[in-house]
Amino acid sequence: MTGRKILVIGGSAAGPKAAARARRMDEHAEVTIIQKSAYLSMASCGYPYYIGGVFDDRNMLLCTPTGVVRDPEFYLKAKKIVARVQTEAVAIDREAKKVRVKDLKTSQEEELSYDSLILATGATPIRPPVPGNDLEGITTLQSMEDADFLRKACDNKQVKKAVVIGAGLIGIEACEALRLSGIETVIVEKASQILAFLDWKMAKLVENYIRSQNIDVHLENGVEAFLGEEGKLKAVKLSSGLEIACDLAVVAVGVKPNSALAQEAGLEIGKTGGVLVDDYMRTSDPDIFAAGDCIEVKNLLTDRKIHAPYGDLANLEGRVAGENAIVGKGATFPGSIQTGICKIFDYSAGTTGLSEKAARQNGKDIVTVINASPDKPGFMTGRLLVSKMVADRKTGRILGAQCIGPGDVSKQIAIWATAIKGGLSVEDMVNADLPYAPPFSLAIDHSIATAHLMQNKMAGRLKGVSVLEVHDKLKSENPPLLLDVRGPDEYDEIRLGVGEVLIPLGVLRERLEELPKNKEKEIICYCKISLRGYEAALVLEANGWKNVRVMEGGIMAWPFPREK
Amino acid sequence: MTGRKILVIGGSAAGPKAAARARRMDEHAEVTIIQKSAYLSMASCGYPYYIGGVFDDRNMLLCTPTGVVRDPEFYLKAKKIVARVQTEAVAIDREAKKVRVKDLKTSQEEELSYDSLILATGATPIRPPVPGNDLEGITTLQSMEDADFLRKACDNKQVKKAVVIGAGLIGIEACEALRLSGIETVIVEKASQILAFLDWKMAKLVENYIRSQNIDVHLENGVEAFLGEEGKLKAVKLSSGLEIACDLAVVAVGVKPNSALAQEAGLEIGKTGGVLVDDYMRTSDPDIFAAGDCIEVKNLLTDRKIHAPYGDLANLEGRVAGENAIVGKGATFPGSIQTGICKIFDYSAGTTGLSEKAARQNGKDIVTVINASPDKPGFMTGRLLVSKMVADRKTGRILGAQCIGPGDVSKQIAIWATAIKGGLSVEDMVNADLPYAPPFSLAIDHSIATAHLMQNKMAGRLKGVSVLEVHDKLKSENPPLLLDVRGPDEYDEIRLGVGEVLIPLGVLRERLEELPKNKEKEIICYCKISLRGYEAALVLEANGWKNVRVMEGGIMAWPFPREK
Repeated sequence: MTGRKILVIGGSAAGPKAAARARRMDEHAEVTIIQKSAYLSMASCGYPYYIGGVFDDRNMLLCTPTGVVRDPEFYLKAKKIVARVQTEAVAIDREAKKVRVKDLKTSQEEELSYDSLILATGATPIRPPVPGNDLEGITTLQSMEDADFLRKACDNKQVKKAVVIGAGLIGIEACEALRLSGIETVIVEKASQILAFLDWKMAKLVENYIRSQNIDVHLENGVEAFLGEEGKLKAVKLSSGLEIACDLAVVAVGVKPNSALAQEAGLEIGKTGGVLVDDYMRTSDPDIFAAGDCIEVKNLLTDRKIHAPYGDLANLEGRVAGENAIVGKGATFPGSIQTGICKIFDYSAGTTGLSEKAARQNGKDIVTVINASPDKPGFMTGRLLVSKMVADRKTGRILGAQCIGPGDVSKQIAIWATAIKGGLSVEDMVNADLPYAPPFSLAIDHSIATAHLMQNKMAGRLKGVSVLEVHDKLKSENPPLLLDVRGPDEYDEIRLGVGEVLIPLGVLRERLEELPKNKEKEIICYCKISLRGYEAALVLEANGWKNVRVMEGGIMAWPFPREK
Repeated sequence: MTGRKILVIGGSAAGPKAAARARRMDEHAEVTIIQKSAYLSMASCGYPYYIGGVFDDRNMLLCTPTGVVRDPEFYLKAKKIVARVQTEAVAIDREAKKVRVKDLKTSQEEELSYDSLILATGATPIRPPVPGNDLEGITTLQSMEDADFLRKACDNKQVKKAVVIGAGLIGIEACEALRLSGIETVIVEKASQILAFLDWKMAKLVENYIRSQNIDVHLENGVEAFLGEEGKLKAVKLSSGLEIACDLAVVAVGVKPNSALAQEAGLEIGKTGGVLVDDYMRTSDPDIFAAGDCIEVKNLLTDRKIHAPYGDLANLEGRVAGENAIVGKGATFPGSIQTGICKIFDYSAGTTGLSEKAARQNGKDIVTVINASPDKPGFMTGRLLVSKMVADRKTGRILGAQCIGPGDVSKQIAIWATAIKGGLSVEDMVNADLPYAPPFSLAIDHSIATAHLMQNKMAGRLKGVSVLEVHDKLKSENPPLLLDVRGPDEYDEIRLGVGEVLIPLGVLRERLEELPKNKEKEIICYCKISLRGYEAALVLEANGWKNVRVMEGGIMAWPFPREK
């Protein structure tokens, strides 16, 4: 094995990880990284926080935990890896096992030979092909140069208003960064909701929060054109016709895998446009591996191939590619369950596994449940979480979970991601043994309470109805009776105002005669989070009403306008 | 089923949960709670935070999230449950299915009949039977009265110095509470370490932190006597002979299950002293259930019966008992993996599954690994975590994890608890798909990095040695060479000072001739957290040294005195 030549194309995330792993697997291998950018191993997920002024030392994006910049000298000295920056790989000769590279400073080309080649060519942000595309003031948020441009724009204080195009993870993070810098910011999204990984209602709750932070959200709106003066952006014209005046636009409508080099070399490309790899991260050529944003991977819940350009997966894939470039068939990366999270001000939104939408699109027979409750006790200033869980109806296997709110979303998603990875069922999670003390959680953790609700629902005890369905039903010919069972003080403070009846749970049993005589009448019970709503529904059912349901998540999950 | 009489003895945690669950399962059941205390459903795990002044509204310990005090009226109105406080259950007549109860205010007794009985009698703090035991100023921390007593002592500002006896979860929390109130506090512990659920070295790191907060820790010391004047505590005399002057002592040396009532009724009691139950929470009498601190449960990893008096489990067990009291054999509670966590100032310490100690005691063939690394990137002010993982050598199944430090311990333990619950292996966690964004974690989460280290260790690539072993080896005839591979600036800032050699990783390959010519010489490499130490070890091995190891966790895991 000794002396094996490992060539890595790409030096951002998957590439350096693969190179470092190859080095650790074989001290005597020759490991070389070819990187187009001037930078190596950038913490690119940190750009929004640098732009937003969460920290000011740009070097922190480029250095090790002990403060050493990860430049070619560092790679050479600490890892005995040759890293050639500002160098582009232009062609792969698979037969000769050589890669032609071009020094971007001198334009000189040369050929480098390899025993194993690792492609970590990343992805490129998509830019809508509309007029004005090339005006000054339009940027993506992917490269160090983008980060520098945006940080400067923020520091200069000359940008008054920005439009972020695309309300996915990057768009939302960009939005936060700009807003933190005092720039008036608007988001535009083509779809009918922000954050496509969430189901509509969950996304709506996040959208409501974002609006509450004085950020305008324009949904179902693409960009028709960028309008400018003297080469500078002055406005964004939406497909609705609306023109939003602005000095800056951040385009974050997704990325496409950089698979051209692989394709030209005759490697198999998947349907998503990503390089096709097996679990060893091996392409259709057994001497060529690929990892990171340029590949497609398997969704472990649907078995479908997906493009999953996440920084954490890039590292895991790179580690596998680096090992196998040395040992052949060692480590494996089986795929993703598409876990993701983002922060926006004091709110977080996360997901793992399948949303209801994705599960149904994949033909799954599912049950869903909503839980709105705090992450910690009130006396430890617990903060609200709203979770939605998706489980297989027949087996009870957990297929997905979403969580949003000011509470500790990250822990909830980590729990569900681990449960899904392990193929756990609702019954497994009902008695989960999680770390409990008041500074960290409720005695029954939010995740376990979510499993309890799901268990009750699957057993037919909790007959839930989503806020969306309730909202639709209210417009029907024969709307249901909405029964709010909170206290009068809570009702005064906040209420739906859709013609609901207020009977607090504590007096419900003595005031049953106020309810419809017709025991077939549909009654929908709720409270703040619908725990009391659930208890009320059980009281009504036990007293003969036959069509009683609980509005899941209660008022806290209601994404529509309220009376108060 | 309708009209079934459910009698619950105990109104703190498991009891009210069981009663509420029984009510939800059957609106027409007669549900009664018998509670000895004047209070119901107290958030007893919150006492330390009330005592320490984290919040001042005592009612928050007793009320629902919407602020309604959980008193008998609340139970009657909201849940149609009769809750009789200050009432003691004195005997069970299983044949007649009756319980004799005594009103503690009037001393009147009466008999209550039941169809299903649920025992949730809790546990009693152990008080060492030593002289001076009954002096004023000695308390436990278990009841509302204890909390009131301690809060008053803190508010009065008359207590200058306190001794906490027992350094388990409650002792540590008591210690934090008293210190936050400005009381000089000392902890005394009989064992050779604090927090018995941790392995020695992990406990030592927490102990070092506690000492850094100006709290004295006396290990291997029991209480010989309490010394007083005029009936008031003046000092605690330790078994070492040391007398510590103090005005207050909090005894937290464990609890014993209140199983006397069950035992007198002829119910089977387990070896731990807890009431024996099956997975349905049914005692040896099929009409009597038990839940909470009065029972013993199965440790799911050892199959041994344990006493696990945790508030979260009490709730889960109560839920199962309450359901089965109505339906017979419905829900199950299979057992515990003994997950626990506590906070002390800006530090947390958590555990799940088996410690190395516990695993070895149970005859497991295991591998352990230590990981010291931050929870988040440096630019997001990541905080250190030190984790120890225990896995089965043959199957790779994860058996336990401990985590301590200023970082987000709770999430780490939640991840491991879910993985252990699901029977996951190290290989499963190596490619875990967790929620990543810089505000929440590193690109490779601390838990995944821990799994990577374990994978490397199990594959024989990482030849680790614990700091304890290193410390012992240094005292031997032929001590190993300790090789610090950090930078000179890091070395100047902090170092072991045990005769180590400093050669930074970046120059190691060019300075190999400075290392022992004898390739059999034992060399132990380390850095701050031993990632560079691992890389250094691979360099040395590749260059012919045959006896190279990595000190796990690096300097961050070194619990002994350092030079700087």
